[in-house]
Amino acid sequence: MTDLLALTADLIDIPSVSRDEAAITAWLEDELRARPWLDVTRVGDNLVARTELGHSRRLVLAGHTDTVPANGNERSRIVDDTLHGLGASDMKGGLAVMLHAARTIADPAVDVTYVFYAREEIAAAESGLGELFERRPDLLVGDVALLGEPTDGTIEAGCQGTMRLRLRLVGARSHTARPWMGRNAIHRLAGVLDRLEHYEERRPVIDGCEYREALQAVGVEGGVAANVVPDAVTLTINHRFAPDREPAEAEAHVRALLAPFLADGDELDVVDVAGAAAPALDHPLLAALVARHDLEVRAKLGWTDVARFAAHGVPAANFGPGDATIAHMADERVSRAQLERVWTATEDLLRHGA
Amino acid sequence: MTDLLALTADLIDIPSVSRDEAAITAWLEDELRARPWLDVTRVGDNLVARTELGHSRRLVLAGHTDTVPANGNERSRIVDDTLHGLGASDMKGGLAVMLHAARTIADPAVDVTYVFYAREEIAAAESGLGELFERRPDLLVGDVALLGEPTDGTIEAGCQGTMRLRLRLVGARSHTARPWMGRNAIHRLAGVLDRLEHYEERRPVIDGCEYREALQAVGVEGGVAANVVPDAVTLTINHRFAPDREPAEAEAHVRALLAPFLADGDELDVVDVAGAAAPALDHPLLAALVARHDLEVRAKLGWTDVARFAAHGVPAANFGPGDATIAHMADERVSRAQLERVWTATEDLLRHGA
Repeated sequence: MTDLLALTADLIDIPSVSRDEAAITAWLEDELRARPWLDVTRVGDNLVARTELGHSRRLVLAGHTDTVPANGNERSRIVDDTLHGLGASDMKGGLAVMLHAARTIADPAVDVTYVFYAREEIAAAESGLGELFERRPDLLVGDVALLGEPTDGTIEAGCQGTMRLRLRLVGARSHTARPWMGRNAIHRLAGVLDRLEHYEERRPVIDGCEYREALQAVGVEGGVAANVVPDAVTLTINHRFAPDREPAEAEAHVRALLAPFLADGDELDVVDVAGAAAPALDHPLLAALVARHDLEVRAKLGWTDVARFAAHGVPAANFGPGDATIAHMADERVSRAQLERVWTATEDLLRHGA
Repeated sequence: MTDLLALTADLIDIPSVSRDEAAITAWLEDELRARPWLDVTRVGDNLVARTELGHSRRLVLAGHTDTVPANGNERSRIVDDTLHGLGASDMKGGLAVMLHAARTIADPAVDVTYVFYAREEIAAAESGLGELFERRPDLLVGDVALLGEPTDGTIEAGCQGTMRLRLRLVGARSHTARPWMGRNAIHRLAGVLDRLEHYEERRPVIDGCEYREALQAVGVEGGVAANVVPDAVTLTINHRFAPDREPAEAEAHVRALLAPFLADGDELDVVDVAGAAAPALDHPLLAALVARHDLEVRAKLGWTDVARFAAHGVPAANFGPGDATIAHMADERVSRAQLERVWTATEDLLRHGA
């Protein structure tokens, strides 16, 4: 068996902090173009390599090539069977599994699309996957997508949607020595914040996965001067919603919740929204993967690129080596056993299909 | 009788926006030095002119020479018996009354100290009166002070104290998709804001004046990022307190009020404080002024320079021509009748004492 730990170390040693993925992309491009069974397309700093075997099903394996900035962990370091270094868990281990499959499996039982994309660790609007969906959606068509984000070999199914709202409450200015001449907009937040504090979230269970919703204030700003009753305050709210709700339903839910606290002149606007993705665990490829390897399945609560695929009609899940809770930390690491567990399940799916 | 309206117009026509008082100070200095009964001292852009007649009582008449920036009203304009222009109400009318007294009353029944000071309309720390109290407190000694701020001929007695506090509530960060792992500091504001919203202020009556206290949030700031449960929020609060309380008592009051909402790690600090000033309407000079002219008396709720005199042991009140509610507005104005009413009472006090 190929040394996946050593391959991951090689990938770590090609630095690829977000927006600086040119070198690793060039290296991967050379590797992929050297395999005659792959049709390779480069779009910006993104790579798509596809088999064209005429199978009835196509599996997409996708992963981002970038990392967060280094934190004294630029160089890989192997101690016993554990690899330490920037991106070890998020997600050069996942890239190693993908690359190893692309290099070695010339005749998969399903057609495969390998997607290596840039700029996942920064603003969603800059995502290389978003760029690909915009410029070459044809390259991303498939039946199911697996993203190699660190899940420690479990399946994180679908993901919740996320919506940011801005609430602006108004009042009337006056001198603070005569506050009865005005109306304090900051004081008016009391009811809203109490409602958020005592919010009882839904926990719908979909395909056996519990999606726990959330509604949180994430920013607040208000005030005119030290001696002025403020006439406006802005509260930014983040709502996470389960895949059984469309964005419009989620918005209506928040509006109904806050309606009792709003008055004439107040504003509640959706600033941005990204839809949820259903777990789709009944898809034959996902069902086979879970069943044959007895994988643990859990709901993904955070929004991930899984939702980009879902929005384009491709059911998707996160499935990769490494522990997400140590991602972005100085002692980020991955073990040989973690890599091989994900490799074994991935290889089996590619060689035998559903 | 001298034309006080014309004299006020002359003072308006010498521009004196804050920090640019050199010209008007020089003009006033020439006027004052021309009167042999006055002992004139200039300290920076502040002037103090004193009679030294050996009377047992000394009355201080004080006024600021600066204005807020112009708003299309730089030049004076007299229409019928009303003068329009920058500072007409705040407070070149008051300066005209002071200057007319200084020019014409050579033998007052009480010794008089005329104080013309700079930079009242900007930050308290820049006040010319503060500069005088720091550099030459000996020049400001007196039994009673009258400040010529616009009160439309009523006596605004004493003033409330003002205190700014900063409350910092803490929490614990987590991802907004898993808020139960953290503690939202912004949500914790709910109780505090509810308490402020339903605050029942004291309204103590002192020397017949009702002082209505106030407690208002004037600023709020918090938030880390759109997907992070915030671990801190800062609320700035302004407390206005009546002259029957020392700053320490006012602070203890606010601390007791907010204590139920504070937890370990939270902070409540006094950022700045300025004490209140008692009305002191029982002082013989103030009592005589009020009684002989049947003046209306009311509590001053905002903090004013009256408190600077009170802090140095000089009972003080605001008493001047013009309407405070139109101060700083483009159509600021003062009428001949307003000027003459204040002049009549002031002249009577100077000529006849208590």
